[in-house]
Amino acid sequence: MASVDLNCDMGEGFGAWEMGDDAAMLEIVTSANVACGFHAGDPTVMRRTLVLARDRGIGVGAHPGFLDIFGFGRRAIQGQTAEEIEAQTVYQIGAIQGMAKAVGHRVTHVKAHGALSNMAMVDDAMALAIGRAIRSIDPALAYMVLPGTALERAAVELGLPVVREVFADRTYEDDATLTPRRIAGSMIHDPDLAAERVLRMVEEQAITSRDGKRIPVPIDTVCVHGDTPGAVGIARRIRDRLEAAGISLVALKDRPA
Amino acid sequence: MASVDLNCDMGEGFGAWEMGDDAAMLEIVTSANVACGFHAGDPTVMRRTLVLARDRGIGVGAHPGFLDIFGFGRRAIQGQTAEEIEAQTVYQIGAIQGMAKAVGHRVTHVKAHGALSNMAMVDDAMALAIGRAIRSIDPALAYMVLPGTALERAAVELGLPVVREVFADRTYEDDATLTPRRIAGSMIHDPDLAAERVLRMVEEQAITSRDGKRIPVPIDTVCVHGDTPGAVGIARRIRDRLEAAGISLVALKDRPA
Amino acid sequence: MASVDLNCDMGEGFGAWEMGDDAAMLEIVTSANVACGFHAGDPTVMRRTLVLARDRGIGVGAHPGFLDIFGFGRRAIQGQTAEEIEAQTVYQIGAIQGMAKAVGHRVTHVKAHGALSNMAMVDDAMALAIGRAIRSIDPALAYMVLPGTALERAAVELGLPVVREVFADRTYEDDATLTPRRIAGSMIHDPDLAAERVLRMVEEQAITSRDGKRIPVPIDTVCVHGDTPGAVGIARRIRDRLEAAGISLVALKDRPA
Amino acid sequence: MASVDLNCDMGEGFGAWEMGDDAAMLEIVTSANVACGFHAGDPTVMRRTLVLARDRGIGVGAHPGFLDIFGFGRRAIQGQTAEEIEAQTVYQIGAIQGMAKAVGHRVTHVKAHGALSNMAMVDDAMALAIGRAIRSIDPALAYMVLPGTALERAAVELGLPVVREVFADRTYEDDATLTPRRIAGSMIHDPDLAAERVLRMVEEQAITSRDGKRIPVPIDTVCVHGDTPGAVGIARRIRDRLEAAGISLVALKDRPA
Repeated sequence: MASVDLNCDMGEGFGAWEMGDDAAMLEIVTSANVACGFHAGDPTVMRRTLVLARDRGIGVGAHPGFLDIFGFGRRAIQGQTAEEIEAQTVYQIGAIQGMAKAVGHRVTHVKAHGALSNMAMVDDAMALAIGRAIRSIDPALAYMVLPGTALERAAVELGLPVVREVFADRTYEDDATLTPRRIAGSMIHDPDLAAERVLRMVEEQAITSRDGKRIPVPIDTVCVHGDTPGAVGIARRIRDRLEAAGISLVALKDRPA
Repeated sequence: MASVDLNCDMGEGFGAWEMGDDAAMLEIVTSANVACGFHAGDPTVMRRTLVLARDRGIGVGAHPGFLDIFGFGRRAIQGQTAEEIEAQTVYQIGAIQGMAKAVGHRVTHVKAHGALSNMAMVDDAMALAIGRAIRSIDPALAYMVLPGTALERAAVELGLPVVREVFADRTYEDDATLTPRRIAGSMIHDPDLAAERVLRMVEEQAITSRDGKRIPVPIDTVCVHGDTPGAVGIARRIRDRLEAAGISLVALKDRPA
Repeated sequence: MASVDLNCDMGEGFGAWEMGDDAAMLEIVTSANVACGFHAGDPTVMRRTLVLARDRGIGVGAHPGFLDIFGFGRRAIQGQTAEEIEAQTVYQIGAIQGMAKAVGHRVTHVKAHGALSNMAMVDDAMALAIGRAIRSIDPALAYMVLPGTALERAAVELGLPVVREVFADRTYEDDATLTPRRIAGSMIHDPDLAAERVLRMVEEQAITSRDGKRIPVPIDTVCVHGDTPGAVGIARRIRDRLEAAGISLVALKDRPA
Repeated sequence: MASVDLNCDMGEGFGAWEMGDDAAMLEIVTSANVACGFHAGDPTVMRRTLVLARDRGIGVGAHPGFLDIFGFGRRAIQGQTAEEIEAQTVYQIGAIQGMAKAVGHRVTHVKAHGALSNMAMVDDAMALAIGRAIRSIDPALAYMVLPGTALERAAVELGLPVVREVFADRTYEDDATLTPRRIAGSMIHDPDLAAERVLRMVEEQAITSRDGKRIPVPIDTVCVHGDTPGAVGIARRIRDRLEAAGISLVALKDRPA
């Protein structure tokens, strides 16, 4: 039977501030990308998130970002060397691995956050720096990537386990990149439309671009969001639609090797 | 032959700022307590320090502190629960363990920094929180403590390996606590005096208080400082004096089990 | 006709995070205490809050706190000198005065936040440090204080305009201090009860303690909260009840001198 | 008699960390650009610097930067709107104006720091955002700019007082921009050479490029640095050389209007 993972960013509160409805999303997804303290998350938030994931059998990934609480890791920070990016990524993976071990859970993948991800998608040196960080701390960790980007190339080149993801709420261009947000229709807000699109991508193991081009790609996981209005409803609809079509939801951590 | 470890706080720069003469101290000490990013240190500084320690065969310990860059972890921050202290400590140990693994080195002890240490010395709940953090992430890590404090009680109660330290540049009271800094003569600035005191403590395996009381205590390591004027000279004198008296300097990581 | 001011803390988001329903509260209160970037608030949040207040004729006060984003200024940070507290307070007042001037509004009072306020209430040196900061930057700024505390003593001693406030959702002890939160019943969650209590305090210009003691005190302003469940509803009820009883709501900035 | 101002960045310590030899530089320069807490500086450092400047009759300018302590304001942070840059600049100017007022001194100019300056030099929208910030808080503040850049265009367009500066330790291209640091010879380390170049620029009121092109430009101030090896010696030599040639050193704050 076909299966896929459903992943969501989580643990993005900080101190007194909260973000997203983690409890609701943890009822829906199979893997959580947990913020590691640089762009969001603090040790208390991280532990709470890891405990919730552990108790529900949800897989967890490190979700490292730029050291930029004020900018939530969304600001494109130029002028950092590959060595700096690598050190920052190692630090964050180590921190969450320690936290996971302390609560009896385990980190199984790494997904870059925000500007770190956006920049590394089109910058091989940065994508490789993230990959080398993963390999140096634990080569069994999977590198979650967007197909066709520098992230995927780096993961393959470094021989890391690769997890390829598609986005539930975004359209694609003919070269498999995401349609820029500024273009009308690039964001999908309708739950039914999102669910149908995801089902089709998973069934076909292919992305269909805005212009109708079909791009075959292995799809290991589908990214859903939890911090926008209606997000929980969309995620729920996607899960239900997949299950109704006989696709089982299996966490990355539970995949056969 | 008698032996002892010599430890020093290191890696306390942050971003563009530097502190202390790490390169010089790494020629003298056998163990380095490396700041973990909460009160000082950043991933680049941490990696540089770990690489230097690795190359010279110096042991490394995690040196966790309060999440307080502005206050350098020296401000006594009240109102944090034991769970919060524990999570913050786990996070920092995990981060440095990951960094050490990435560069091919290994963390072998944990020493609390600044206000975290000062508060935990007299607060059993806080000392236990640090100890539980250590145990949950790696029960083989040694807990570096001041003899006679809540830190030592916690280490013993939790069954962790204990490393007892004395200070080279401070006098002691009859109850084995440090003489408060505000009392004249509590700080020892004379290199010869510091060296003679350290030698006597190590040879006798005992602390002698200001009033002459002799307090037997196993002494595993001697703390020297690298960030005050003349600090490097004092540390060098202490090392030379110990070696001249036939005491070998052996890193904690290299002690027979 | 009797009048009183209604004040609320605002602008306590930071970067990507939001807190409280400022837009709703600005329809109810007459003065806003605006976070100044140390415990919450950032320049963009501050400007947005100041513009909203300006457009609705709401008065604004500086709401300085400890330099502690992670702890939201609620952690009691010991070991800071009066000079440091004074400098931090001047900085924050200057920043918000500049922001207010830039958008064509004006700061008319200062109210300490969180742990800074809690500590200064019982610490004359700290309360005076805040007061000296106010006086040195603008002696026409009013010092918002709780009657009977070190804050009030400092304001009087320094000759600053004093604004005395009572809390809408807390009970009082016989010495006019707030009943500690840990005591059952110290927090008032019932809108009608809160509204009746506020009305009585304002009409009588007196606090009534839990044990029924009546403590005469000039009441210039009533503090309501915007960041707890039901907060907006309670604030609305209080305003309506006061107006129904013929008490007019007048911002501190609009009071006759 | 000809005169010129000599300016230097100062107050760039943070918490426990120090940077540069401010005390030495304050014996040499006539204007200090004081960090405002976003990239360096904290309220205590700022006050100390302002008091030193006040006591020695040195003029002070606001030296705003990106909100980025970790990166010391040197990281090029993309993706911020002009409104955000403007708000951040207003905040920092307000803070230092308040601090200056509290100690009885006065801010007379604004000079952007690090990446904020580098980006605004070639980005009219950003340069205008800084300029609008200045104008909205105090239109009498001078905008310190590099001739020929977007900074100068913005200052002129907004009708702000303009202060044009040249660098003592950098060479120039034919279009009056600084030679990139990566090019050999772009940094001038020889004190005599630096002093002769500065004297010639001030006497001729012109920049001479690497290729010998003479670019006439009014020169109001010369920037010297205090945080590099030998910096104090270079600055001293420049001052001595100017004075020996009959050029008087006059702070911007003391210039005739």
